[in-house]
Amino acid sequence: MPSGKRGRFPIGTPVLDAARSLGVYVESVCGGRATCGRCQVSVQEGNFAKHKIVSSLDHISVKGPKEDRYERVRGLPEGRRLSCSATVQGDLVIDVPQDTVINAQVVRKAATDRVIERNPAVQLCYVEVEEPDMHKPLGDLDRLKAALEKEWGWKDLLVVPHLIPQIQKILRTRLPDQPEVSEGKWGVTAVVHRDTESARPFIVALYPGLKNEAYGIACDIGSTTIAMHLVSLLSGRIAASSGAANPQIRFGEDLMSRVSYVMMNPDGREAMTKAVREAVNELIGKVCAEGNVNREDIFDSVFVCNPIMHHLFLGIDPTELGQAPFALAVSGALQFWAHEIGIEVSRGARLYMLPCIAGHVGADAAGATLSEGPHRQDRMMLLVDVGTNAEIVLGNKERVVAASSPTGPAFEGAEISSGQRAAPGAIERVRIDPVTLEPKYRVIGVDKWSDEPGFEEAAKLTGVTGICGSAIIEVVAEMYLSGIISEDGVVDGSLAERSPRIVQNGRTFSYLLRDGEPRITVTQNDVRAIQLAKAALYAGVKLLMEKQGIDHVHTIRFAGAFGSFIDPKYAMVLGLIPDCDLSEVKAVGNAAGTGALMALLNRDHRREIEQTVRKIEKIETALEPHFQQLFVNAMALPNKVDPFPKLAAAVPLPPRKADDAGATPGEASPRRRSREERAARRARS
Amino acid sequence: MPSGKRGRFPIGTPVLDAARSLGVYVESVCGGRATCGRCQVSVQEGNFAKHKIVSSLDHISVKGPKEDRYERVRGLPEGRRLSCSATVQGDLVIDVPQDTVINAQVVRKAATDRVIERNPAVQLCYVEVEEPDMHKPLGDLDRLKAALEKEWGWKDLLVVPHLIPQIQKILRTRLPDQPEVSEGKWGVTAVVHRDTESARPFIVALYPGLKNEAYGIACDIGSTTIAMHLVSLLSGRIAASSGAANPQIRFGEDLMSRVSYVMMNPDGREAMTKAVREAVNELIGKVCAEGNVNREDIFDSVFVCNPIMHHLFLGIDPTELGQAPFALAVSGALQFWAHEIGIEVSRGARLYMLPCIAGHVGADAAGATLSEGPHRQDRMMLLVDVGTNAEIVLGNKERVVAASSPTGPAFEGAEISSGQRAAPGAIERVRIDPVTLEPKYRVIGVDKWSDEPGFEEAAKLTGVTGICGSAIIEVVAEMYLSGIISEDGVVDGSLAERSPRIVQNGRTFSYLLRDGEPRITVTQNDVRAIQLAKAALYAGVKLLMEKQGIDHVHTIRFAGAFGSFIDPKYAMVLGLIPDCDLSEVKAVGNAAGTGALMALLNRDHRREIEQTVRKIEKIETALEPHFQQLFVNAMALPNKVDPFPKLAAAVPLPPRKADDAGATPGEASPRRRSREERAARRARS
Repeated sequence: MPSGKRGRFPIGTPVLDAARSLGVYVESVCGGRATCGRCQVSVQEGNFAKHKIVSSLDHISVKGPKEDRYERVRGLPEGRRLSCSATVQGDLVIDVPQDTVINAQVVRKAATDRVIERNPAVQLCYVEVEEPDMHKPLGDLDRLKAALEKEWGWKDLLVVPHLIPQIQKILRTRLPDQPEVSEGKWGVTAVVHRDTESARPFIVALYPGLKNEAYGIACDIGSTTIAMHLVSLLSGRIAASSGAANPQIRFGEDLMSRVSYVMMNPDGREAMTKAVREAVNELIGKVCAEGNVNREDIFDSVFVCNPIMHHLFLGIDPTELGQAPFALAVSGALQFWAHEIGIEVSRGARLYMLPCIAGHVGADAAGATLSEGPHRQDRMMLLVDVGTNAEIVLGNKERVVAASSPTGPAFEGAEISSGQRAAPGAIERVRIDPVTLEPKYRVIGVDKWSDEPGFEEAAKLTGVTGICGSAIIEVVAEMYLSGIISEDGVVDGSLAERSPRIVQNGRTFSYLLRDGEPRITVTQNDVRAIQLAKAALYAGVKLLMEKQGIDHVHTIRFAGAFGSFIDPKYAMVLGLIPDCDLSEVKAVGNAAGTGALMALLNRDHRREIEQTVRKIEKIETALEPHFQQLFVNAMALPNKVDPFPKLAAAVPLPPRKADDAGATPGEASPRRRSREERAARRARS
Repeated sequence: MPSGKRGRFPIGTPVLDAARSLGVYVESVCGGRATCGRCQVSVQEGNFAKHKIVSSLDHISVKGPKEDRYERVRGLPEGRRLSCSATVQGDLVIDVPQDTVINAQVVRKAATDRVIERNPAVQLCYVEVEEPDMHKPLGDLDRLKAALEKEWGWKDLLVVPHLIPQIQKILRTRLPDQPEVSEGKWGVTAVVHRDTESARPFIVALYPGLKNEAYGIACDIGSTTIAMHLVSLLSGRIAASSGAANPQIRFGEDLMSRVSYVMMNPDGREAMTKAVREAVNELIGKVCAEGNVNREDIFDSVFVCNPIMHHLFLGIDPTELGQAPFALAVSGALQFWAHEIGIEVSRGARLYMLPCIAGHVGADAAGATLSEGPHRQDRMMLLVDVGTNAEIVLGNKERVVAASSPTGPAFEGAEISSGQRAAPGAIERVRIDPVTLEPKYRVIGVDKWSDEPGFEEAAKLTGVTGICGSAIIEVVAEMYLSGIISEDGVVDGSLAERSPRIVQNGRTFSYLLRDGEPRITVTQNDVRAIQLAKAALYAGVKLLMEKQGIDHVHTIRFAGAFGSFIDPKYAMVLGLIPDCDLSEVKAVGNAAGTGALMALLNRDHRREIEQTVRKIEKIETALEPHFQQLFVNAMALPNKVDPFPKLAAAVPLPPRKADDAGATPGEASPRRRSREERAARRARS
């Protein structure tokens, strides 16, 4: 467990050998000498009737002298055994501890923990190397290789060149506390990387005696934030997780302004590459400090990024991505030595970059795909990651399609009159009473709802300064649910008679959320901006659904920073995503980062995502003549054009108005028309 | 031809395809577009009765429009055809030009030219790459790889990371004179290296349009001299060959003094590594200037060195090689990117280092082995490379053994009273009249023998300053042949009555070679020094002959600078080497460098020498109890202990003295005895 794999073995088989012959990865550094303690397992006791197994501590061998010594010297937790020493003596259910648990909701919260089965690219291998012998004048390195082949089965081992001058000295170093070594031999630990671009494994580092820890980093470089996990490659334990701002922001807030910066400045690309690499190195320092880890002990790294970050991080000019045909310089997965692009970890560390799916659907989308696994589903899964572009993946085991849709920055709070970044003082939750039309809201940094006693007192520290991205979705959705806006998105001015919250604003009306300093309103233009953004997303989803020939999806996953803060229900009420059973809609946080972590801890996941990305059908919305019509239709809120029966069953949607169904929304306003045309042009370009 | 391979092909088969299907390497860069001209061949006309072939120009297709155009634009030498365009129309004998011819005697002299069949690790591949397409969002690199797979059959291509940021721009560069490219495609030339440590081929460089030249260097780093060939990898033409002094000489004249320097100076190893790498880079500059080649066009390099140079060049501390058990840090062949050790050629160039055979038998000996090929012989070949250590390889197809013997520096002119380096003014040839005992000699830089009229006049420019290494062998051998010294090496003082050339010198006698300023004599001590050196070499050879269970060898090859200047006959008269048919004894010059060149031009030779070295049985003379006795016996000149019948048939050796045969030579002299003991100790240590 947890793999569930089963097999029959002769009495006396070491549990480690049994696990390996079943293809279950159990770590071992010392090679069965009972000194590293990495191969710990525990026995589940009980009568597993379903499997006709009675598992008992009597069915495993008693501790022998080696295991006893390990327990005496290093200690062994209650119930744990060293699987290299403990042997099978009867039916057994064995637990292999998998310390990496990934929470799908928010990292490090235990609600929906997921276990990543480990099979890392890096292995630590303790060996005894023959001392030199004039009769057999093999070199030190050559005898080391021979020992690694004999004890660990590594064939055709390569070695990183910078290590060659150090091997002599490392082999001849004696540490006071190292394991006992046979006569005429030297004990060393080789760090072997078996997922290099070569078909052959590499010795990437070498240590005297027993080296018993190795780390890796998984990193998601976003346009605004860089997120990183530091993980033990030997236990899967997450030693630290942290984030930092992407310093490229000083060259341009969003991706396209960074591409422009490169086009305008001869050394712009170089400056941004330098900035992001420095930030990554600083963040490595930060997670190492948090996790109390030496950065020299990091031997592997996995990166995901959107296409423009991908190019800038790798030192590639992103200009081509700013214009049709949006040609990626490289789309396939990449790997090389981390030092080759200046990443400051062990000199022998590798860097793996997940493949990009298309010019607007990057390695981050590939990471999210790996994490959520539409390609592993029996039923149709929709995966959306919303940013300036929405990256959309839709599929199941049979077929996966992907596209990007130009949502623009409205969801991030830009182009919204009272919009602001998610920071203390920002409104993050909103409810509107459908009868009184009175709102209540929560503010980041304040512990109470606005209608609770003491709220104003508590809010004095932060102020109430604006609406953050997730709350904009919520307030517009609540305005729709309470009848303040119609399916067309028009604020109903007639309600001004019923409620002072509806205020006239030139030729249109606004909803007054808070009358203070500042005055926070949701204007007709704000609603339009959200409609345009959601229309782009929804049109992309509908296009992919058409490609798949389906009219509903089974599950929906909202990935990304935006997705982790909005309530999926409100996203559906606004029609960002299609109708779906609400229980099947989940925000999954930084799924791209989780995908990077999976690729770090299990190299099989690298092959999985490489194959998946090759098979994904890429749809370019700009080339689809039908996309513009889908976009215009998608301006309406649910039930206007598309009925949302599952949503309607859970949330009382306003009654569907039959009279103007199918009409292009907003025909009355020439200004709105011109905005829609601009948006459609943007979608086409 | 010259491979001699034959086959039957359908009428109309392009000659290039026919050659390839026979496993004959014919270069082609443009991939059959008739633009690069690299695939030229010519038809041999005539009736090859032995092979039942009538070859005629009628049996090859007439030139088509593509070949015509090439001839018009670039010119085609008389009789040459483009094998990608010319097709088989009947029986044909085809010549594939192999421009590399290696002279075994002295490089670039045409007497015993040898052809190295080419199969280089580097290939230039012109391809047409699809322009980007929004419907198929594959990256530029990924489409390049697809084109290289489609047109050239390269699978699983890798790319050097530093190239990734440049690919976009290279693909989009249009050159004015590049070949015509199909609509919607880009024409580029990829440099593919297929002998990396990876099992997968690497794209190491990329050029817009047709790139039609690539070079490699083969380099032998000796203790005193660094020798280098610059060769076209596409034609095999040697563009330049040159040499330079090893600047490490300032840290110590010989190898052991350099090891001492490392032991005494904390930064000694680093300083010597830096010095030799700088010298290699300067020498690359020199051969590039001579050959009019851009150093950026060098994509491959092969190095051979003795073990200590090998370690210092690679940045490895050589201290272990100065003491038992003489442990090499690495013995196997190595390869990595040339820039990783600071070699200034193309950033994508590789470096291949031949394997070392043992702690005193280096990659240079492996190079000489590859060049002369004892492992390819039906009959027993002895290969000796004489320096401070003599490296000895003996074997045939069945079995090869190797050892090193501590000859000391006498052969290089050190420890010799009138010894000097081979430079103008040094005596390089000596003859002694057996009747008058009068010498004649030749001096480097002087065109006449010393007994010819005008010699003294001509010698005024250089002076006559001493005896160089090769002439020391010759003068001692001539002294033996003329009876001045006995089989024991004693200068016969009784001859002083007959000739004023025999002069007393304390308790011993000397031979006066030239009575001038300086006075040049060969003293009894000089003879002893040569005897000790030759005894070490001969004892090593005898030891290996014993291991092989043979009492004579069929062929002898003298490699190295020393070997290329001495006359093999005199080496045998002195008994440096065992008795052998004189016509089967050859000096082969820098065979190590020739081996490096072979490994550069044909990667099959790399596998050949790796396998051979693994199989060679390494004999450590210091561990052989019998070696000391062999050494003492070997002090005598031929016919004293070992009869040399084949030599005696060609050269009238002095009659064998039966009286003291078998006695330990020189029992009379306590001083000599102690020198022998010192030498034996040195051999043991």
